[in-house]
Amino acid sequence: MNQNNINIEEYGIYDGISETIFTTGTDSPNAAPMGLIRKGDRIQIRLFKGSQTYENVVNEKCLVANVIIDPVVFARSTFTNLYDEEFDTVSVNNRKYPFLKKALSYVIFECSDIRYTKNTLVADVLPLYACINRNVIKAPNRGFNAVLDALIHATRYRVFDNEKYLNIVYELSNTVKKCGGSKENRAMEILYDYLNIEH
Amino acid sequence: MNQNNINIEEYGIYDGISETIFTTGTDSPNAAPMGLIRKGDRIQIRLFKGSQTYENVVNEKCLVANVIIDPVVFARSTFTNLYDEEFDTVSVNNRKYPFLKKALSYVIFECSDIRYTKNTLVADVLPLYACINRNVIKAPNRGFNAVLDALIHATRYRVFDNEKYLNIVYELSNTVKKCGGSKENRAMEILYDYLNIEH
Repeated sequence: MNQNNINIEEYGIYDGISETIFTTGTDSPNAAPMGLIRKGDRIQIRLFKGSQTYENVVNEKCLVANVIIDPVVFARSTFTNLYDEEFDTVSVNNRKYPFLKKALSYVIFECSDIRYTKNTLVADVLPLYACINRNVIKAPNRGFNAVLDALIHATRYRVFDNEKYLNIVYELSNTVKKCGGSKENRAMEILYDYLNIEH
Repeated sequence: MNQNNINIEEYGIYDGISETIFTTGTDSPNAAPMGLIRKGDRIQIRLFKGSQTYENVVNEKCLVANVIIDPVVFARSTFTNLYDEEFDTVSVNNRKYPFLKKALSYVIFECSDIRYTKNTLVADVLPLYACINRNVIKAPNRGFNAVLDALIHATRYRVFDNEKYLNIVYELSNTVKKCGGSKENRAMEILYDYLNIEH
């Protein structure tokens, strides 16, 4: 538990690294897939310089972690921003926070301690407010899992321009074809379009 | 939609292969992880001869697909049966069906058509009844995904006794250590115990 008595497991945040989508920026909301690192009661974030999320967290010292299970939203928010209509806002203590309408749940976090290195920001974060937004059940799908992994390797391919990441993406696409549904396959199409590669 | 007007997406079954746990056997319930293969309105199962699930489906022509997000339940039901206390039963049309208390949702399916090959059974299945049992939210976790994959490769290792599957398990265990939480790590301990291997 924490100072606001929020049991964040109720909102989907268990120990380990939760693959969530951070929404940040009060005036012009931004969404990007980011990991929330939880060990017991301690929750941390690690952001790389250059992203809009990084800029917003530096300026506002807060973020919203959205629990999303739609692979298409993960794919789109990896490569581009989402549409304004996909965001909503919630007011807490006279301050507005953006969240995603599609989120099953979201948790507003405030940074309690931020350390900067040359290229990253690592912060301890504390939950300020949490909300269950929608109840959607989805059975585990290995295609969905492969999409998440493929998006991570696609990002590495864009940053490091190393073919090995692209080969991993191609391998993972076999799992998506075999096990995924229409949303997982759509997510891979988005990935290929943004990488501008054949498939 | 189907003859019973059940929208199975509400119960977590989307297109592609859903990784569910089948419960079968009216008198002595059995649980085992199995894929539910959905293409549009058509849902199929594919079972290998030799499993208790296979025997029960041959005898009873029905099964219950449980949507489970607990990696420990996946691990335990891969290698052994669950405890009797973990099952509950539901009566539909004067017949009792077993389901898992931990299931977020479950769908009872009846086989409409069963084809046998030498080692497998492939059946079309139709939903008879569906229930949302618990609302639990969990953010995607790459460690959880790695556990599911590791269980599949561990099973292949036991069947084929080929070291290559064991090496995949070891690789996946790195992702579990990095991204998983206590439940994912517990699931890997169970896997190693049943394979009786060092780690």
